[in-house]
Amino acid sequence: MAARDVVILGVGLHRFGRFPEKRLEDMAREAALIALKDAGVEYKDIEAGFCGHVLPGTAVGLRVFSELGLTGIPVTNVELACASSSRGVMLAADAIAGGIYDLALVIGAEKMERGLLGGGLEASYQSLMGLFIMPGAYALMAHRHMHEYGTKPEHFAKVSEKSHRNGALNPYAQYQQPLSLEEIMNSRMIAEPITLYQCSPTTDGASAVVVASAEKARQYTGKPVYLRAWAGATPIYQRDEPELSEGPTDIIARKCYEKTGAGPEDIDVAQVHDAFTPGEILGIEHLGLVPEGEGGPFVWEGGTEITGKMPVNTDGGLLSRGHPLGATGGAMITELTRQLRGEAGPRQVQGAKTALLHNAGLGGVNVMILQS
Amino acid sequence: MAARDVVILGVGLHRFGRFPEKRLEDMAREAALIALKDAGVEYKDIEAGFCGHVLPGTAVGLRVFSELGLTGIPVTNVELACASSSRGVMLAADAIAGGIYDLALVIGAEKMERGLLGGGLEASYQSLMGLFIMPGAYALMAHRHMHEYGTKPEHFAKVSEKSHRNGALNPYAQYQQPLSLEEIMNSRMIAEPITLYQCSPTTDGASAVVVASAEKARQYTGKPVYLRAWAGATPIYQRDEPELSEGPTDIIARKCYEKTGAGPEDIDVAQVHDAFTPGEILGIEHLGLVPEGEGGPFVWEGGTEITGKMPVNTDGGLLSRGHPLGATGGAMITELTRQLRGEAGPRQVQGAKTALLHNAGLGGVNVMILQS
Repeated sequence: MAARDVVILGVGLHRFGRFPEKRLEDMAREAALIALKDAGVEYKDIEAGFCGHVLPGTAVGLRVFSELGLTGIPVTNVELACASSSRGVMLAADAIAGGIYDLALVIGAEKMERGLLGGGLEASYQSLMGLFIMPGAYALMAHRHMHEYGTKPEHFAKVSEKSHRNGALNPYAQYQQPLSLEEIMNSRMIAEPITLYQCSPTTDGASAVVVASAEKARQYTGKPVYLRAWAGATPIYQRDEPELSEGPTDIIARKCYEKTGAGPEDIDVAQVHDAFTPGEILGIEHLGLVPEGEGGPFVWEGGTEITGKMPVNTDGGLLSRGHPLGATGGAMITELTRQLRGEAGPRQVQGAKTALLHNAGLGGVNVMILQS
Repeated sequence: MAARDVVILGVGLHRFGRFPEKRLEDMAREAALIALKDAGVEYKDIEAGFCGHVLPGTAVGLRVFSELGLTGIPVTNVELACASSSRGVMLAADAIAGGIYDLALVIGAEKMERGLLGGGLEASYQSLMGLFIMPGAYALMAHRHMHEYGTKPEHFAKVSEKSHRNGALNPYAQYQQPLSLEEIMNSRMIAEPITLYQCSPTTDGASAVVVASAEKARQYTGKPVYLRAWAGATPIYQRDEPELSEGPTDIIARKCYEKTGAGPEDIDVAQVHDAFTPGEILGIEHLGLVPEGEGGPFVWEGGTEITGKMPVNTDGGLLSRGHPLGATGGAMITELTRQLRGEAGPRQVQGAKTALLHNAGLGGVNVMILQS
């Protein structure tokens, strides 16, 4: 077992949106300087860097960290598609728990291009069948859920309505205005039942997270939030999930619950990977936050609202806050950290003490439990 | 400090070369199965995966590990250009040292395209000046060395002559025949003084390394080699090296020597990053294996031969064994592991007990010390 407690000591974002005039490095530097200030840590004291970035480009981590200063620290580029920067935080946590470092900085940054994302590499059966086209994959999962549990198209649309309402409370969000359920359901059909406004947008942005040993954190002015458990996974054969490309969320969530001694009933606020609206409904079920099959009605009846029984994606989520692939995981951690510190302003979940993160990417899924 | 000893328990390669008919995944599977067999480990017992891969492609790690079985383990894609898979081994070692895992598999795999490698991202001053064109960058370093120390063009060519002679002894090498000094010096000029046969070739291939806790390793049939120290770095400002994009090899080598209690005089065999011939001469100096400025004559007089005072790149190195970016670091570890086990056949350095690895990439450098 890991020997030492790990904390999130500082977090920061560059606003998510479209910034054609800005360099990736400029956005990354802004997020990193905010996180360092938030942590009360000077950059020169950072011992290791990790950079979550997805779209083609070598040495992105070096370029990004060079903007802060060339201090000689090792910098590792971590790629796990939409789950890159949360995996970066997990690798930092692995090393910090084991005593390799005391202070690490994880930067996630992305400038996206318009259009569908490529799946990469050579053609496989799945890619030829279109199963790596993300809205298509999520639509198939949605249909299965509708067939098995009676989930309705408006349940999915409700996820986006709630997310855009939350995003309007978040100055860092790409979209900061509410959308009505009608606007969402009547927007262009992408992959039935998923309409345009049920898809995460194309986004530029950056996130940064300072990870520290709990012991070291005591020297700084930041307000540490404990990273109590973290686990990653890939799909398991014979579990009807290889096509998800993400893996057994239920298994690793259970592992995290066991490690912390908390259960789903103890989670006060969650970030759930809502790249497309079905993701949030399926996610809360896989994480054990609602019983299997009950996600649709739960969302419809307000259960995931900031003031609901189980607040989810309080910052607008991928749908409204935006989804700059490599930066997304760090943004999720940023929101949960602010919630656990009671610093989320109009988005604050009252009395939040335990938070859950679920960040899925093509190639794996990450789950974390954070506690104040 | 890290709590537990870490070992290299198994290693494997797919032959390096040009394999247009093979999928990346096929090469990776072959290397991985050899490494698992070598370790005496069943794939189902592997707890975490890392995939070193550089050229564009998302979820490469998932695809590669899926070929071995979908067991649900976390798989992380690690990119550090030519130093990707050795960084993967270092991340595995970080987590194993800290008790997060006991058994990890690191696969490096690449299928390269002809032509110069792209630097990635947006234009910077350095890229506009051509400083990210690798033979040009190495040529500038070579000229500085020639100016300061009187190093001669034939000293650099000698590195390649020795490497190709060693590669001829390695059935996994891309090139398996010697080249004469004349052939090397008379080959096409690429960036003076670097001729064509002083450049690492375009290569396809895969490497695999099973990393384990020393405690766990005792359950298996493999012959563990201790990974005594590892460190990574990026360039340091005001050290005249930012343009190298690799970093302070001397500092991290010293850190590793201190950690192991060994000094440069204790190194029996080394892998030094010879993407271009000046790399080996500068590398052995930065690593402290020969005094600053004496690398050229040392190589010329046979010091780096298998039977020399300080054997370097016994397997043919990047120049002859080949350099499939993401797979290179794992191949270096494979050769050093075989040397330390006394299994290097005609390339064996007699009585090798302590080995040094130096793997440099655009974005960082890695140094390791391994011991039998």
